[in-house]
Amino acid sequence: MNAFHWPQRVTVREVGLRDGLQSIARTLPTAHKLQWIQGAYDAGLREIEVGSFVPPKLLPQLADTAELVAFAKTLPGLVVSVLVPNLKGAERAMDSGADWMLLPLSASHAHSLANLRKTPDEVLVEIAAMVEARRARGSNIRIEVGMSTALGCTIQGRVEVDEVLRLLKAVLALGVDRVGLADTVGYADPRQVGELFAQAREVAGDRLACGHFHDTRGLGMANVMAALQTGETRFDACLAGIGGCPHAPGASGNVATEDLAYLFASMGITTGIDFGKLMALRAQVAQWLAGECLHGSIAQAGLPKTLRTSEVMA
Amino acid sequence: MNAFHWPQRVTVREVGLRDGLQSIARTLPTAHKLQWIQGAYDAGLREIEVGSFVPPKLLPQLADTAELVAFAKTLPGLVVSVLVPNLKGAERAMDSGADWMLLPLSASHAHSLANLRKTPDEVLVEIAAMVEARRARGSNIRIEVGMSTALGCTIQGRVEVDEVLRLLKAVLALGVDRVGLADTVGYADPRQVGELFAQAREVAGDRLACGHFHDTRGLGMANVMAALQTGETRFDACLAGIGGCPHAPGASGNVATEDLAYLFASMGITTGIDFGKLMALRAQVAQWLAGECLHGSIAQAGLPKTLRTSEVMA
Repeated sequence: MNAFHWPQRVTVREVGLRDGLQSIARTLPTAHKLQWIQGAYDAGLREIEVGSFVPPKLLPQLADTAELVAFAKTLPGLVVSVLVPNLKGAERAMDSGADWMLLPLSASHAHSLANLRKTPDEVLVEIAAMVEARRARGSNIRIEVGMSTALGCTIQGRVEVDEVLRLLKAVLALGVDRVGLADTVGYADPRQVGELFAQAREVAGDRLACGHFHDTRGLGMANVMAALQTGETRFDACLAGIGGCPHAPGASGNVATEDLAYLFASMGITTGIDFGKLMALRAQVAQWLAGECLHGSIAQAGLPKTLRTSEVMA
Repeated sequence: MNAFHWPQRVTVREVGLRDGLQSIARTLPTAHKLQWIQGAYDAGLREIEVGSFVPPKLLPQLADTAELVAFAKTLPGLVVSVLVPNLKGAERAMDSGADWMLLPLSASHAHSLANLRKTPDEVLVEIAAMVEARRARGSNIRIEVGMSTALGCTIQGRVEVDEVLRLLKAVLALGVDRVGLADTVGYADPRQVGELFAQAREVAGDRLACGHFHDTRGLGMANVMAALQTGETRFDACLAGIGGCPHAPGASGNVATEDLAYLFASMGITTGIDFGKLMALRAQVAQWLAGECLHGSIAQAGLPKTLRTSEVMA
């Protein structure tokens, strides 16, 4: 580890408004979501996934995504992402003015069928149609494919590395701008993460541009470190670690934004995040989500006195 | 990370009976502690710190340490450790028949004064006296020095690496058998851990033989990984993650034994631990400690279906 050249800066993308809220039954009022976006922006986050263009019947709590994009786009320099599960959603994303649309592609056959009612190869066809729709409209929207269950699946169990790499090559060949790898269900271990990210980078180069980890079994931060050590410098996170796996009630969900910000700050790696403002936002969101299962170590323990605020904000 | 040669096997030392229980006000009955030792042994743990030879007035909950050592020594192949803070405690440890006595040496001047009422250099003198007492008695007991606050201190803040290395050299020169480095207050980050363990190994070689991490700020597993990647293969842990820092109520304490066992098993590294038996013991201990703040991700989320029990037990 000593010989490792640590990056100067990493990017944390806040995905709590999508990945977090979609797993919470209650609908957060749009006004609160707007405050959340503003607060995250004020705290220095410059990439936010604000929602998802899924049918409102499926996820009514995300039905206000277009309004959130419109607001988020008024904040200078903010990169606004939305999740898009199909061609209709892609059209809405392009209408909305979002910067990025995030297309899920399950590496697990079983998860793909359960989640999208399509095999991974059928999803590839859909992604090809979305790339074509972008071309046809002359849209500037950029496309990231998030490969879910890339490190294991609660339904099918193991997911073969060869299958992940095959799908990665296929989706890159379709002309998407970048890809990310997700441990959707918290099955990954750091050795596996290091190996998969290294192999995926050989395939994707700099187009591999996101690590998405859950802390379900306590390995979220170790897995982030493993990806970081292979050169990954963009990570998803949810404020207060929301977004738990429905198969493990009470278990932690996504890595918590505030814990991830602390991890990087503790190592002297810049994220641009103002910790005080981020924790104030967390307290506000925790109040809105009272009764939900929230997570995060820093919220309980506080920062060590050895960490200067300037290191967090640098 | 890909080029890293992972160890086949690591050792987990259960320290809950000492480091865990000393931070819990209630006294666990001796009969329960004996069950805990037996249960940990049955679960495959082969190193246990069973207590501390401190004055019973200071820590009445550890007053039965001699009895625990006597029982633990009846279990074939179990390596029995006790904490010893001074020469009188060392005499009791040698009387008890324990295999190892663990001597704390704070790298932080302020912590050393607060905890042991001695400067680190005064503690070195005491350690020299204990090494001499062992020689004078012709005792076979082995001596490990645990360097506490080696990665930061809640009282003094930063602890300089040069001071850690100076004390390490001094204590090794006294003839102790091995040393460990402890993040006593949960201040460490993985980059710092990797760098300190690498430097300490240059000084101590194979006599650097323990990493002791707390999960106070969610980085316990990442810090274990960082030490592992420098060649460390022995780690302390407390069942259910007990042993919280008194300065951070509700915050996690030591890394949880069951989570650490899972970390290694997930990477295919052998610990000899039978996960089912370990979790049954945890459930029993949790019942005894009802009302205390327990921790651990695996206890909430369970094992992933991709992990075979044989991998945990191998």
